Amino acid sequence: MSQEPPHYRVSRIAKELEASGRDVIHMEIGDPELDTDPRIVDAMCRAAREGHTHYAPTRGVKPLLERLVGYMERFIKPGFDLSIDNIVVTPGSKVAIYTALRLLRPRKIFVVEPMWGLYHSFASEMGIEIVHIPTRMEDGWELRTEINGVEKGDVIAVVNPNNPTGTILSRESISNILETAREADAYILADEVYFDLIYRGSMTSFLSMDYDRVLAFYTFSKNFVMSGFRVGWVVSPSKDLANNFLNRLRLIVGGPPPFSQYGAAEALTLMDVLEKNRRFYMETLQYSVERLREMGFRFVEPSAGMYIFAEPPVEEMNGVEFTYRLLEEEAVAVAPGTGFGDYPGYVRFTTSLRMERLEEAFNRIERFLERR
Amino acid sequence: MSQEPPHYRVSRIAKELEASGRDVIHMEIGDPELDTDPRIVDAMCRAAREGHTHYAPTRGVKPLLERLVGYMERFIKPGFDLSIDNIVVTPGSKVAIYTALRLLRPRKIFVVEPMWGLYHSFASEMGIEIVHIPTRMEDGWELRTEINGVEKGDVIAVVNPNNPTGTILSRESISNILETAREADAYILADEVYFDLIYRGSMTSFLSMDYDRVLAFYTFSKNFVMSGFRVGWVVSPSKDLANNFLNRLRLIVGGPPPFSQYGAAEALTLMDVLEKNRRFYMETLQYSVERLREMGFRFVEPSAGMYIFAEPPVEEMNGVEFTYRLLEEEAVAVAPGTGFGDYPGYVRFTTSLRMERLEEAFNRIERFLERR
Repeated sequence: MSQEPPHYRVSRIAKELEASGRDVIHMEIGDPELDTDPRIVDAMCRAAREGHTHYAPTRGVKPLLERLVGYMERFIKPGFDLSIDNIVVTPGSKVAIYTALRLLRPRKIFVVEPMWGLYHSFASEMGIEIVHIPTRMEDGWELRTEINGVEKGDVIAVVNPNNPTGTILSRESISNILETAREADAYILADEVYFDLIYRGSMTSFLSMDYDRVLAFYTFSKNFVMSGFRVGWVVSPSKDLANNFLNRLRLIVGGPPPFSQYGAAEALTLMDVLEKNRRFYMETLQYSVERLREMGFRFVEPSAGMYIFAEPPVEEMNGVEFTYRLLEEEAVAVAPGTGFGDYPGYVRFTTSLRMERLEEAFNRIERFLERR
Repeated sequence: MSQEPPHYRVSRIAKELEASGRDVIHMEIGDPELDTDPRIVDAMCRAAREGHTHYAPTRGVKPLLERLVGYMERFIKPGFDLSIDNIVVTPGSKVAIYTALRLLRPRKIFVVEPMWGLYHSFASEMGIEIVHIPTRMEDGWELRTEINGVEKGDVIAVVNPNNPTGTILSRESISNILETAREADAYILADEVYFDLIYRGSMTSFLSMDYDRVLAFYTFSKNFVMSGFRVGWVVSPSKDLANNFLNRLRLIVGGPPPFSQYGAAEALTLMDVLEKNRRFYMETLQYSVERLREMGFRFVEPSAGMYIFAEPPVEEMNGVEFTYRLLEEEAVAVAPGTGFGDYPGYVRFTTSLRMERLEEAFNRIERFLERR
């Protein structure tokens, strides 16, 4: 049975503290303190009342698939005829990535790190070897090393914009990764979940390049604040690969509830909601950058997302010790860097909290540091 | 890549016929032609409006878990202290069974057949050996053979009440299976999804026996007509086994949407809905029994569920040929017996169609047979 990932361990201790009456501030989970827009909920309820409470086609309901085609066109390489056949709606990104790995059965997964811990857990669950491809803060989390030893059928896993660092890989890095994959005839699993939450610069999607063996993962959880709806989607430039993915997804789990999907279809028509959410993520991130900087944390300022990956300004403890002491002493939960690769010196802060809570969190952290 | 199961193949051909304008009657899928009760939909919408649109605890939301404890108490062996810790809410039974197999990693799965094709597909996906334990119509689908060769950690898979036959295993058969498992220290995966749809006699749940290594699977899909909600649940007499299952489920997929779960919690308070649905299932099944009997189909009259597993009264073709010719000539889709084990002579009829459609379906089948 698999080991408890550090991420889960922190959540568990936090819950125990709460059970004993402590007011824990959660900066360890990737769920924003925002409400889902009522128009999205209304659309879901309308669909359920109209009878969309039965099994739906596993690929997804038509209105959602059709809108996703339009939504993703900006990413797809020019001249490519993107259609519904390139897309599969998924019940979240986690099981989508799991399904992709069950389908592809790589010999090795090359993980560009830091990377949220999912691939590490999946690789251990499936008995697949992980090859760590670390990037460093000193390089602005840009990929400076070569990826060696990739063979046919292997997987290169990339999260861009990055979770936990919030940085965006340069077009050059994306090209290099792609060329490595192409030479080896390997697959790229591209977690591009934060594509809608970019505040500076722009990203290069793996879908915009000329390579078929790509599965790119997206979700409505963060951009539209719909984590509970369990709706994500996968895009592949290859209709065959998308279709094989669909068949495997159908075998393992099937799709999300049809009414959830109608909610998601509505969301894609509400660009004001996306804009409002983006502003919230950006402002809370900006405020967090300032507070952490004042306290002497070392990090690269994120260009995207809802996280800051930072080295605490304390000599006597590493990120793991910092995490558990901060949790115990000040009831602020963060995610230790070891959950994202070999980064014992780091912690990840989720910054998408309501402003009063965010302020309180950083006040507690300040107090914690002043006691050292 | 896995082979297309016969079940999916029929659905695909049926869809192609529909695309060409044919009016296909679907007797191959397990989804009733009933509406979800509006009070269930309302409860779901209320929960979503109240903010239950974020991540929920993977085990399930509290009100649902608490009501499930009460709902399942009738099944649990006398004196056993059933609690929330014995239960895990799942996003459907399919992924729940998949997750159980990933957790247990048996050397062999002993499948009491006929059995819907899921275990066969999963075993092939995971490279696990299947041992077929056939039962025969002549024995009333009762288990007459011994299950030999079971070793520690293996899985015995049983669906009771049975899909596809609608028969219920005797208490003696359940005891025998359980003793075989106990002697070998093996696991029992008990699909008891049709527990709420029994019309004659009663069933013995594996939860009512004195054995810990049991995972029993249930869902709201059929009894409460909520297949699109994607809510099921697992019960184990062992809190440890339930907990290991929970951790594996969290790793692979997580739980269903929280608002779906609130809908399910409401359903458990609506026994009039269950009664109404049961009556529908029973009446459509009864009507189907009469029609199929008149035409000379051979089968054991079901005591539960929504299916009839029958031998067509035709000499010149087996169940598979019958399936595809009936689909082509009369646009009635059924499931060939080969999807449930080595039963080439049989087909499965789903009988939970609206009465007019059911009548039309059997008229078409009559016409089909008259042409032979």
